[in-house]
Amino acid sequence: MTDLYDAIHRRRDVRGQFTGAPIPAPTLDRVLSAAHAAPSVGLSQPWDFILVRDAGVRATFHAHVQQERDTFAATLAPDAAERFRPIKIDGILESTLSVVVTYDPTRGSPAVLGRHAIADAGLYSACLAIQNLWLAATAEGLGVGWVSFYREDFLRGLLGIPAGVRPVAWLCVGPVTHLEATPDLERHGWRRRRPLTEAIHEERWTPAPPA
Amino acid sequence: MTDLYDAIHRRRDVRGQFTGAPIPAPTLDRVLSAAHAAPSVGLSQPWDFILVRDAGVRATFHAHVQQERDTFAATLAPDAAERFRPIKIDGILESTLSVVVTYDPTRGSPAVLGRHAIADAGLYSACLAIQNLWLAATAEGLGVGWVSFYREDFLRGLLGIPAGVRPVAWLCVGPVTHLEATPDLERHGWRRRRPLTEAIHEERWTPAPPA
Repeated sequence: MTDLYDAIHRRRDVRGQFTGAPIPAPTLDRVLSAAHAAPSVGLSQPWDFILVRDAGVRATFHAHVQQERDTFAATLAPDAAERFRPIKIDGILESTLSVVVTYDPTRGSPAVLGRHAIADAGLYSACLAIQNLWLAATAEGLGVGWVSFYREDFLRGLLGIPAGVRPVAWLCVGPVTHLEATPDLERHGWRRRRPLTEAIHEERWTPAPPA
Repeated sequence: MTDLYDAIHRRRDVRGQFTGAPIPAPTLDRVLSAAHAAPSVGLSQPWDFILVRDAGVRATFHAHVQQERDTFAATLAPDAAERFRPIKIDGILESTLSVVVTYDPTRGSPAVLGRHAIADAGLYSACLAIQNLWLAATAEGLGVGWVSFYREDFLRGLLGIPAGVRPVAWLCVGPVTHLEATPDLERHGWRRRRPLTEAIHEERWTPAPPA
């Protein structure tokens, strides 16, 4: 039994602590079942999970991510570029498994209950599944790292994902040596966490206090 | 202590079981703290939470949702319209509290680490916060119902949300008599859940088996 709040507050976006050790099949099944138990607009369950273990495919993706990292670095002011340099952005090669989560807008179409006014509602559902996966993995002693330095079309081509289906996340998953107490980006001085009180508004939107 | 998997699998999208009983302040604080502990692209934490208790504001929103319900119903084939008719789509008036979750793309701009290639990555972060909130609420004995029958501009106007900030969800939150074992839409014959095995692909996308 794992405490929900413990999983929520210990969870980290992992880049550097993967061991590469195997994930027992029943563990992976519990984690994917948790993802699949997420809520979805109109009960459409528009997600799919592609499990990528192949080293060659992962190396190809990793090279693409490195390119995108350079593209991003080139947009930064010198001081930001300096802070970005030591930050590791992925664990694609070191993690045991990659799970690519996709969104299929045709699932349950044409009449997806609850999606007529908000086209993105199906995309939101896929994200809810990702958070369930992430918390279950944390509870199981696994780390998860979300890689978003990629072009969706590149990933479609790499994994044979049809044109109408959208890749939402590349998740690195696997056993880790430990979870850091402080998020990587905060440890590296990239950005500080915001106090919860600033995010809460009573009854109506209230502008942020002057910085 | 509440088991993570218990919360994940008992969680429901609640429409009809709200009691309207008060939510103790420490409980609400734990639930919102859970939401705020979600991962976010570039540690941008782009979400805000507007707590709506005012009965007049909720009644106005409810009337708008009813209109959108009619708009959706008019698009349905006769047999689907018949199945849709008895399905309650919201608990706006009966729930204790409404929590409107928004996404602010300017938070942490211009250089949000991890968002240069995928503009929607910040929107995804707001959804991860919603799932944390939902699970924590479930663990605390509260129900959550996500209302998506609304126009974003209407909700902006109603709550004074700035043009650049996007409403992502209207969540009805509060104590409930019980959580249903089967999702409402399945109980009402709208749609059945998909087996997990159909959502899993090994190494590459595999087309669905013929229906």
